[in-house]
Amino acid sequence: MPELRRDPVVGRWVIVAPERADRPNAVVRTLPDQDDPASCPFCPGHEAITPPELLVRRDNAGPPNGPGWTLRVVPNRFPALRTEERMVRAGLGMYDAMGGVGAHEVIIETPEHARAMPQQSPEQVEQVLRAAQERILDLSRDVRLRSVLFFKNSGAASGATLSHPHSQIVALPLVPTELQQELAGAERHYEEKERCIFCDILAQEARERSRVVLETDGFMALSPWAARGPFELLVLPREHRSIFEQSTAAELRGLSEALRLSLRKLDLALGKPAYNFYLHTLPLREPPSDWYHWHLELRPILALAAGFEWGSGLFVNPTPPEEAAAFLRQTEA
Amino acid sequence: MPELRRDPVVGRWVIVAPERADRPNAVVRTLPDQDDPASCPFCPGHEAITPPELLVRRDNAGPPNGPGWTLRVVPNRFPALRTEERMVRAGLGMYDAMGGVGAHEVIIETPEHARAMPQQSPEQVEQVLRAAQERILDLSRDVRLRSVLFFKNSGAASGATLSHPHSQIVALPLVPTELQQELAGAERHYEEKERCIFCDILAQEARERSRVVLETDGFMALSPWAARGPFELLVLPREHRSIFEQSTAAELRGLSEALRLSLRKLDLALGKPAYNFYLHTLPLREPPSDWYHWHLELRPILALAAGFEWGSGLFVNPTPPEEAAAFLRQTEA
Repeated sequence: MPELRRDPVVGRWVIVAPERADRPNAVVRTLPDQDDPASCPFCPGHEAITPPELLVRRDNAGPPNGPGWTLRVVPNRFPALRTEERMVRAGLGMYDAMGGVGAHEVIIETPEHARAMPQQSPEQVEQVLRAAQERILDLSRDVRLRSVLFFKNSGAASGATLSHPHSQIVALPLVPTELQQELAGAERHYEEKERCIFCDILAQEARERSRVVLETDGFMALSPWAARGPFELLVLPREHRSIFEQSTAAELRGLSEALRLSLRKLDLALGKPAYNFYLHTLPLREPPSDWYHWHLELRPILALAAGFEWGSGLFVNPTPPEEAAAFLRQTEA
Repeated sequence: MPELRRDPVVGRWVIVAPERADRPNAVVRTLPDQDDPASCPFCPGHEAITPPELLVRRDNAGPPNGPGWTLRVVPNRFPALRTEERMVRAGLGMYDAMGGVGAHEVIIETPEHARAMPQQSPEQVEQVLRAAQERILDLSRDVRLRSVLFFKNSGAASGATLSHPHSQIVALPLVPTELQQELAGAERHYEEKERCIFCDILAQEARERSRVVLETDGFMALSPWAARGPFELLVLPREHRSIFEQSTAAELRGLSEALRLSLRKLDLALGKPAYNFYLHTLPLREPPSDWYHWHLELRPILALAAGFEWGSGLFVNPTPPEEAAAFLRQTEA
């Protein structure tokens, strides 16, 4: 049922994923109170509410889809895309569509309903990243899928509909616009200079220091030069790496430290803001690239995108990135 | 003080517009209760709170910046850009910046605090569009300014910080990404087919009917093929027109009817949703174009953009545009 449609003017794809609503204006899903563990589909004992697990970590030897787990990955109950779709492409007059082939999975990060990611142990955060890595590697075997987005919405203002700590994976039959634009910009830079643009950014930031927030073993978190909003952060491996899912165990540990520390600093500096993060990595099955560099973008939600942002594609950021970085450097987390 | 900064990878410009906050994490402005006319800066009798008016319509012969007006245009008190800035361009290592030259104005649409645009008379809506036209023509004389975005945020979820009916105008020293991408797509289509892509869309929609919401004298409102969200609408002149500010009085009347009727239908169908609209027209001082077609995009806010949308640039729309259009066609407004 889901369908991908292409805007004929700008080429942007949209996923039309109708939910079983009686009326077309019933667009807001009725959800149980998201803060009540009694009705939370992600709490232990409620495993039967979710589709069967795709991956599980457990301390005990209990049966699948029962309690005792420390992390679960399950298909999303309201998927934007489905693996069962047929990979049909169609033209309708001047319009283009394709079947909504893909996958939409949820990583339930912890059995503890109220253990938000900044309060998770380093091992727990690392376990989430390892689960993402494992799922991406598995999904990459489906040749219909061209890219994967690993992301997290936390807090009602972030678009999250459930408060139990979780992140998500969407596998797509195309390379999405944001990644395409990064790939194009990075390739242009490489053609001109034969250097990775992200490595160049890391070098300039390491020299100037004013936008560096923190460094861990192998990773840097910085306030990007053209941050779209207050306290936006960019987390990158300091060595050139183009494929997230080929990360070593040590690299995943370094990333989990940088991510956890960044989130703890934001929590303290801004009073537990809602936030989104997402991972940009090479499209699936591409060979390692000299010009692309995977990274994680982290955006606390402090203002709403409004008509100006939607209409222009420009963002207005009231907090200079250098001030945000200085403030976060001082914040002890 | 405002500065434009360019993202080195994707080329997106961001306006860094620091507000006078004591601490960098004081990013949320403290505002008076937006629903209290007693403290509303846009209500009659409070003219001294806003900067002096740039344009005014009044029934009486009262002095400027005093009551008796039916519409005012004033500079924004918290401008994203300023005409007083110097037009400096600078490179900082691999980063690019330019002075935040521009203008940011507010159209106070009516003296009535609670008279939202869908409840305004046809003449009032037309007066708003005429004010926008007049201000764009005036701003176009400043050769440093390259484009203007006329837009409106209505309702807290739209990013509006004041409830008194108002719309806004931002003049920019560059052509913003969204418009650039439309111009590029439309030009590509024209080079291939020697036809305006928007005229082609109008022709296909007029034939298929399934996405047409309404037609007024000279205008069509439709649910676009690849709508980013439920009930997004596109309003276009049915004849080929590339420059909004050269519209005739009859054309402005036709647009105001189409806009007002669309807003009334959305109000009834969705229970007075928050919404944004914005106008896309040719960059300033360009000669009329055979391949670009000005239009207005209208987006009710029914879901928040989340990590998936930010990370991919793709949107998930749960309401097929054909269903939204059918529902709105039936809605008597």
